[in-house]
Amino acid sequence: MQRKIYLQMHTLAEAQQLFWSRFKTHGTGEETVASRSARGRVTAGPISARFSSPSFHSAAMDGLAVRAEDTFAASDDAPLTLRLDAGQATMINTGYPLPPEANAVIMIENVLLGNDGTEAVIRAPVYPWQHVRKVGEDIVATELLFPTGHQLRPPDIGALITGGCATIRVRKRPRVVIIPTGSELVTLEDYPEAVPPGKTIESNAVVLAGLAEQAGAEVTITPIISDDFEAIKAHLQHILAAGADLVIVNAGSSAGSADYTVRIIEQLGEVLVHGITIMPGKPTILGAINNTPVVGVPGYPVSAIIAMEQLVVPLIARMQGIHVEPPAIVKALLAKDMPSKSGIEEFRRMIVGRIDDHFVAVPLKQGAGAITTLTRANGILRIAAASEGEIHGREVEIELLAPLPQVERTLLCTGSHDLCLDVLGDFLRQEDPAYPLASTHVGSLGGIMALKQGMCHIAGSHLLDPSDGSYNTSYIRKHLAGRDIRIVTLVYREQGFIVAQGNPKQIHSVHDLFGKGVRFINRQAGSGTRVLLDYELSRHNLDPDDIDGYQQDEYTHMAVAVAVLSGKVDVGLGIKSAARALGLDFVPLIEERYDLLIPGELFATPMIQAVLTVINTERFKQTVAGMGGYSTRETGNLVPLV
Amino acid sequence: MQRKIYLQMHTLAEAQQLFWSRFKTHGTGEETVASRSARGRVTAGPISARFSSPSFHSAAMDGLAVRAEDTFAASDDAPLTLRLDAGQATMINTGYPLPPEANAVIMIENVLLGNDGTEAVIRAPVYPWQHVRKVGEDIVATELLFPTGHQLRPPDIGALITGGCATIRVRKRPRVVIIPTGSELVTLEDYPEAVPPGKTIESNAVVLAGLAEQAGAEVTITPIISDDFEAIKAHLQHILAAGADLVIVNAGSSAGSADYTVRIIEQLGEVLVHGITIMPGKPTILGAINNTPVVGVPGYPVSAIIAMEQLVVPLIARMQGIHVEPPAIVKALLAKDMPSKSGIEEFRRMIVGRIDDHFVAVPLKQGAGAITTLTRANGILRIAAASEGEIHGREVEIELLAPLPQVERTLLCTGSHDLCLDVLGDFLRQEDPAYPLASTHVGSLGGIMALKQGMCHIAGSHLLDPSDGSYNTSYIRKHLAGRDIRIVTLVYREQGFIVAQGNPKQIHSVHDLFGKGVRFINRQAGSGTRVLLDYELSRHNLDPDDIDGYQQDEYTHMAVAVAVLSGKVDVGLGIKSAARALGLDFVPLIEERYDLLIPGELFATPMIQAVLTVINTERFKQTVAGMGGYSTRETGNLVPLV
Repeated sequence: MQRKIYLQMHTLAEAQQLFWSRFKTHGTGEETVASRSARGRVTAGPISARFSSPSFHSAAMDGLAVRAEDTFAASDDAPLTLRLDAGQATMINTGYPLPPEANAVIMIENVLLGNDGTEAVIRAPVYPWQHVRKVGEDIVATELLFPTGHQLRPPDIGALITGGCATIRVRKRPRVVIIPTGSELVTLEDYPEAVPPGKTIESNAVVLAGLAEQAGAEVTITPIISDDFEAIKAHLQHILAAGADLVIVNAGSSAGSADYTVRIIEQLGEVLVHGITIMPGKPTILGAINNTPVVGVPGYPVSAIIAMEQLVVPLIARMQGIHVEPPAIVKALLAKDMPSKSGIEEFRRMIVGRIDDHFVAVPLKQGAGAITTLTRANGILRIAAASEGEIHGREVEIELLAPLPQVERTLLCTGSHDLCLDVLGDFLRQEDPAYPLASTHVGSLGGIMALKQGMCHIAGSHLLDPSDGSYNTSYIRKHLAGRDIRIVTLVYREQGFIVAQGNPKQIHSVHDLFGKGVRFINRQAGSGTRVLLDYELSRHNLDPDDIDGYQQDEYTHMAVAVAVLSGKVDVGLGIKSAARALGLDFVPLIEERYDLLIPGELFATPMIQAVLTVINTERFKQTVAGMGGYSTRETGNLVPLV
Repeated sequence: MQRKIYLQMHTLAEAQQLFWSRFKTHGTGEETVASRSARGRVTAGPISARFSSPSFHSAAMDGLAVRAEDTFAASDDAPLTLRLDAGQATMINTGYPLPPEANAVIMIENVLLGNDGTEAVIRAPVYPWQHVRKVGEDIVATELLFPTGHQLRPPDIGALITGGCATIRVRKRPRVVIIPTGSELVTLEDYPEAVPPGKTIESNAVVLAGLAEQAGAEVTITPIISDDFEAIKAHLQHILAAGADLVIVNAGSSAGSADYTVRIIEQLGEVLVHGITIMPGKPTILGAINNTPVVGVPGYPVSAIIAMEQLVVPLIARMQGIHVEPPAIVKALLAKDMPSKSGIEEFRRMIVGRIDDHFVAVPLKQGAGAITTLTRANGILRIAAASEGEIHGREVEIELLAPLPQVERTLLCTGSHDLCLDVLGDFLRQEDPAYPLASTHVGSLGGIMALKQGMCHIAGSHLLDPSDGSYNTSYIRKHLAGRDIRIVTLVYREQGFIVAQGNPKQIHSVHDLFGKGVRFINRQAGSGTRVLLDYELSRHNLDPDDIDGYQQDEYTHMAVAVAVLSGKVDVGLGIKSAARALGLDFVPLIEERYDLLIPGELFATPMIQAVLTVINTERFKQTVAGMGGYSTRETGNLVPLV
């Protein structure tokens, strides 16, 4: 194994400059295509019209073609009769050529036909060229239709055809070849039922291909190549010999024992950049072999996508003579502290929503391995290399990944986690307009704090007050004193022990968590589930410290269930639907109420009203009931705060 | 010929409501597709993960897999040696599975290998699960990956494959059939060299097809059908029998003699809407035949596109369970008065740019026939039916047709027209970033007025002061007193008589414009060319009123040349390049200076600097010189205002 050594890391701006300027004149050449098929293509030079449009004087209205001079005498008091049979006027449809002597059209609405259609009576004159489209009114032959570097949209194709340009010169599409490498990689098609132990499903190539295709490239994905220096090298040489405008080697871009890409590029050509001070995306390699750009893209999916978008997609656009527009930006208040390593520019995936008159940005988790942080995000926060992070409540600039109106309709839901929120989200997406539900999980008390700081639209909560058996109300009175908070019950749900199939450790009550080699996994402090556990323990005078694993916690029911499934622990407390989802057994302990907490000032907004409409439908209640472990007997009820 | 009668016109909102609600449940059904090929497709239901990811505990870093508990004793003072050969630690690459007993990874950077790689020395402990990606950390099998109605982007495909979903259920693409009708229509492919007299090139079908395809449809364009009631009816019946989700009949939607569409829909099904109070787009027909939407789209290209975008594209999206996002909007100051007919909602094509801290919107011409108003526009102003128009200087809301950053880089150029501006625009589009040049023509004096009102970045001007032979300076001093205006010479150019080939009327001087049956076309008042003509006439003591056509004017050199080409007039005054472009003869009269006038406060902006850079290049000067009739001897010179 080699050390992970980058001889010289570059900043993103340096890397872009080095890479793009190296291939500045590396256009992909031109070709002639039919204008009909040219949508999305980029003009290779200025395009001039060959025909004028209209190519003749034509009627702009349905009506009567006349010589304007013949109508000057007409008035309401002195209607004028024109003889159609004598050629004084001619019926004409919109778009048809004017008879040689005519120079105006009278709208059909202003004409009274008589005498079997041989005469027309008019009551007002027309002026010369009225309701006439003159030759060249739209397009004059020889005039510039489109400049160089114009990407053609549907109406542009219409102008090309109207202007007589049946074919045009456009930039060739860049040919991009993507080579997935890695001995651990298998295709999903080969293993459709389960991932073989120690293997990983190759999923990056099609993502990178999609991004390249969106940028105008023609993409080939080669078969997966194992981690074999000579095999990868020979494959790359073969690809280059066959002709490619850009080659992407995926993974093998780090400096681990199997990371050959940089050495291969070194042997065959030139490494321009190895290592960029960004995260994710640090181990990116930018190289050139015989004047063809060759990129080593990192293996983690988020790293791969960021390297692709920041470095490769703009180059693919430039090869066609176009430039990628910067993303739209909104200013948003940061919902959490985000410490960041100095010296590295971070790309953090965010969920952004609008609350009242300001935007709020909630960070998703950091890992470069989590593709779902990108599929769930609707924005990116770039934390500059010089920064040590951003502070909660500060205004930050977010690059949007979704159209602004969609971001503005995004429902920020936080607090406790429940699987019914997925059902709610699915139903809300089918509304018109759709309200994307973005839920993050910080526990019930975390949700109440987010409400306090104005950082969410809705918080899910199931905080039991042991003193009176009430849910949520006493916590709201305490932490949100004076605030108008509406409490809407979502469901009653069963909490209980999530255990392996067959309940091998025979756990039936809180007493069974003690001793016998039982390994437990807890939920984080501030979660309703932990409050519940602590209440049950104190009710039975049991000491938490005697539970093996009480200090280890997870943030969601599903994470608890996964810990049980993986055999890491024997038991955790959670909801039935989580156990059921993973095929685990469930030992009911208590039924609890799970509410949605909503600021009163947002209650009448269309977004919240859409939520209330959905949860009150029979279809929603039936779907939830079908998941098991839920009762919808009070779903949609407004709980009094007092 | 029938009267153009709409039994009941609908507003756009009414028409949308009537049409869309009629086909509310008219989905296109589902199908199963490979996730790999699903980019852009729309999920037909919620999609849950089948696999967890990672599917095993894996190394998040290259390094040493260890049991965390074995490292607790390590410190800088007391380095700890782990035996690789005894299984205390194992070298591991990122992404590889952890050995069964390991629960943490030490980064390779923090490891000192020794004794032929059988020993590793560490100087700090790791905590359990450090640098480990745990099972299900990204995706837990069964969890919701995407809700119903989600349009899949490249990273989404990665999540699907990682989550084990090799195939998914998506909405079928709507099958849209477009029928071009009209006896006057021919294809460009059949007449590539010239439009036959009285014929029109069919250009709408491919535009409508492009818009439908962008919205996700699979489109078929049928051959052109002549204006024959029975032929169109039989063709439509055939299309419907073969199966279509939506049919568009193009043209034949008005009420002229050849407008059969509404009667055919009436006979075969039901006309929901005939006539909408919008302009362009009024004669749109919305119908249903056997529960299939059939739309009669108007024939004028702009009408067709607006009807398509306002009524059909949203329905195509809805058929797939998605909703079209509203366009982005900016507030802009209106550069001109825009009177509008009350009772009709107008869609006016606009050019929008940013000047200092505000946006400015310049209207393009009104005609529904001018496709170039759409290809040149970057925004749409909707003038409400209740409004009688908008007033110059008022703030209006513009729907953007281009990305905001591109709009912000748009260079608003007005004033006098010169063909060199096209060259300038073409060169500016090749800069990085590109500055789209949008030029409108209002004459030199009109340009000075636009500068006065802050409605442009640049005005082209060639206003001769007869008293001293100077250009522009005296006009600026008079009309822009106290303003800091920079004058940059673009070119010297020849003005002269544009005449038919061979100069049949033998026009060699201003004297020849008089008598002999010579028909003249003038330029509009306030244009530099008209000033020039008037100067020449007064210098020779000639009376303009004796010229046949002095009162008729055009707004551009090209329009003058077209008038000559069409035989409508014999002569006009204009620039050589316009004559040359249309193959006309040119009789030089005078050489004049054509300048760019630029507000001093904008002079240092990147946009204006890009203009100056371009016009000072040899390549620009050579291209201009090659057009004929130009001298670039002072191109780029700054003319003193005093």
